[in-house]
Amino acid sequence: MAFVNANYLKLQAGYLFPEIARRVTQFAEANPTMAGRIIRCGIGDVTEPLPLAARQAMHAAIDELGDRATFKGYGPPFGYDSVRKTIAEHDYRGRGIAIADDEIFLSDGSKGDCGAILDILASGGTSSGATNRNVTAIPDPVYPVYVDTNVMVGNTGDPRSAAAGGGYDGLVHLQSTPENDFVPETPRQHVDVIFLCFPNNPTGAVIDRARLTAWVDYALAEEAIILYDAAYEAYITDPALPRSIYEIPGARECAIEFRSFSKNGGFTGVRCGYTVCPKSLMGRADGSSGRTTSLHALWSRRWSTKSNGVSYPVQRGAEALYSPEGRSQVQGLVDFYLGNARVLREGVSKLGLRTWGGVNAPYVWVECPKGLDSWALFDRMLTQANVVITPGAGFGRCGEGFFRISAFNSRANVEEVVRRLATLAHA
Amino acid sequence: MAFVNANYLKLQAGYLFPEIARRVTQFAEANPTMAGRIIRCGIGDVTEPLPLAARQAMHAAIDELGDRATFKGYGPPFGYDSVRKTIAEHDYRGRGIAIADDEIFLSDGSKGDCGAILDILASGGTSSGATNRNVTAIPDPVYPVYVDTNVMVGNTGDPRSAAAGGGYDGLVHLQSTPENDFVPETPRQHVDVIFLCFPNNPTGAVIDRARLTAWVDYALAEEAIILYDAAYEAYITDPALPRSIYEIPGARECAIEFRSFSKNGGFTGVRCGYTVCPKSLMGRADGSSGRTTSLHALWSRRWSTKSNGVSYPVQRGAEALYSPEGRSQVQGLVDFYLGNARVLREGVSKLGLRTWGGVNAPYVWVECPKGLDSWALFDRMLTQANVVITPGAGFGRCGEGFFRISAFNSRANVEEVVRRLATLAHA
Repeated sequence: MAFVNANYLKLQAGYLFPEIARRVTQFAEANPTMAGRIIRCGIGDVTEPLPLAARQAMHAAIDELGDRATFKGYGPPFGYDSVRKTIAEHDYRGRGIAIADDEIFLSDGSKGDCGAILDILASGGTSSGATNRNVTAIPDPVYPVYVDTNVMVGNTGDPRSAAAGGGYDGLVHLQSTPENDFVPETPRQHVDVIFLCFPNNPTGAVIDRARLTAWVDYALAEEAIILYDAAYEAYITDPALPRSIYEIPGARECAIEFRSFSKNGGFTGVRCGYTVCPKSLMGRADGSSGRTTSLHALWSRRWSTKSNGVSYPVQRGAEALYSPEGRSQVQGLVDFYLGNARVLREGVSKLGLRTWGGVNAPYVWVECPKGLDSWALFDRMLTQANVVITPGAGFGRCGEGFFRISAFNSRANVEEVVRRLATLAHA
Repeated sequence: MAFVNANYLKLQAGYLFPEIARRVTQFAEANPTMAGRIIRCGIGDVTEPLPLAARQAMHAAIDELGDRATFKGYGPPFGYDSVRKTIAEHDYRGRGIAIADDEIFLSDGSKGDCGAILDILASGGTSSGATNRNVTAIPDPVYPVYVDTNVMVGNTGDPRSAAAGGGYDGLVHLQSTPENDFVPETPRQHVDVIFLCFPNNPTGAVIDRARLTAWVDYALAEEAIILYDAAYEAYITDPALPRSIYEIPGARECAIEFRSFSKNGGFTGVRCGYTVCPKSLMGRADGSSGRTTSLHALWSRRWSTKSNGVSYPVQRGAEALYSPEGRSQVQGLVDFYLGNARVLREGVSKLGLRTWGGVNAPYVWVECPKGLDSWALFDRMLTQANVVITPGAGFGRCGEGFFRISAFNSRANVEEVVRRLATLAHA
């Protein structure tokens, strides 16, 4: 019988968000009269209409596909040149960051990219005798995709018990706690691959220039690669904060950056993101020859072999987010959600709960009231306030004792959430 | 320094179609007066307008995204229930094939699926001492993606020289030749994973019920998995030919099927396809415990962890291909391209060249005139007739001595190709 990828069998329980959906559905079915009252601040999904500029561009692209003279079939595997150029100019070169058009790789979303990048790195390093093992460092708490995709490719051993610290054998878990403002320090040991995400999901933490420089310096010294998830970059309002890792000298030699149109352009259902892979980034082919190889070449080969690129109307929609109208509409969305975050942060703070994030980030991270763990708090919020939050434990062991509230909602819902939390707190 | 996936370094030259594109661009730049005369029958990309039903549905979906009340964010990772149901009913249950809605997994295209499926199977089996090695069988000639993705995950050794038979060590290459009508026989040895594609790309060969039954029986006897690429199923006009492997008894226990909207609905630029993974399909977890596991469960976990599903407007467009109008428009496209295939097949036959395919398939497979290998023929066709074909050698060693002409073009272009070939043959 054919062998399956047995690494999948190490994965613990379900992926976080399906588990949340399962509990919400179960509650709604058992309590049909309350189903309509549920407010979802769990998964972090945008709620406001797609920007007009994107819709207009997508409509026009569909019309092009309806005319033989302007029909588009297979596109370039990395995205249309004009789209790559628009992105490189606006997000990088226009901000003084040297990124070439052909260092931009369009995809159908950042979630996929975070897993796909492991295709081009050595994996399975936990098997005995492997001579090309990458030691991988992942923050805790963290977006579960980084951990689960590493488990899937065999970069970990078995899950560890909570008593043994949780997580997985073989991964270096970087603790993010109130003591370090949820920005992990560089490790004392050598690691080869590092996942970082700022503004952070789930904590809403941001990283300043000094601390990001420390990470880049560490990566350069250890010849490690930083996989930098900047999906929430648009929420940075403080001009002193870096919006891209490439603002830090040396990052072109040690970092790949992931960007998304999900949370700025409202593309969670439209699906588009991109990866920046500098041509100056090198990896090692094996343990003995010392031969180095360009990650850009491997990433190009990965995409041209495994994909036919992003849907044409979707690319045109993403490109339109950079037009003057598009940028203004995106800013309107970001400002709106940041306003929600402020309402949530202030409301929760007034209840006497410690909060982080919600500034330069669309997530508010809250310490659970004493005596409640995060899934117990999730259940209580669902059943008593009919509000869906995300339990911190779903993001890793260091997330236990905290919960995440997403600012992606209507203003009315956000205000109602604050009212219900106040009622619950005073009950 | 971080280690890369060194399997990529085994890949030979560029992926076929970028190499073709490179040569065409080079010729066009060197001969600007002839650039406008080039007719592309190489990559097999559709040319006719996207069906109206799909465009209307996509326009409506975009309008939905513009209204807060109907906005759609993250969709289900495997596709919207209504779309999965529509597919399962029309393509399977309506034809008497038992496939459940939740055995349909939408994706952004079949090319990606053919590589992604390897995520859930054991890989890297060529490393010494591996106890869970899958022996993989791949036809020759073949769509290069099957081979290259297997190389990428470490299922092969190094490339073999042409003198040693070509291909890669560790793969079982199934020879498809004029002697077996380009339908390979089941191997005499044991294999665990088998790639098949019918109607075939590149040869246009079809498989009848008896021979497909032989493959299913082989897979059941050997407990192997067949990965069945049915991307060209819509081109089957002979009612005696199987359109799905699930028409064969036992296939639910041994096969995964890939389908695409690229070549029926003209979706090469819109990007949508699907995989059928039956819940009755099992694999083995490891070599010692004998534990079996559901591939459906692993495939579900793969998609929910690594993707947020297919673009909402794209899903609606695909669904609309099943409406009465959509089906009629798809049939019109298929009939049109099949008409092109007939023109090409008859025209080439008249020149005295042996041909296959072009019936129940959109590709015509032609034997090269004596004394020309397939890349030499490619260059001659490009420079003398300004027609781009695909050299058979790009599909594997058994493709040498043949070339593929794609029927995806306008009727006028196809007729012009036949005229130019006649001129070239008589020159």
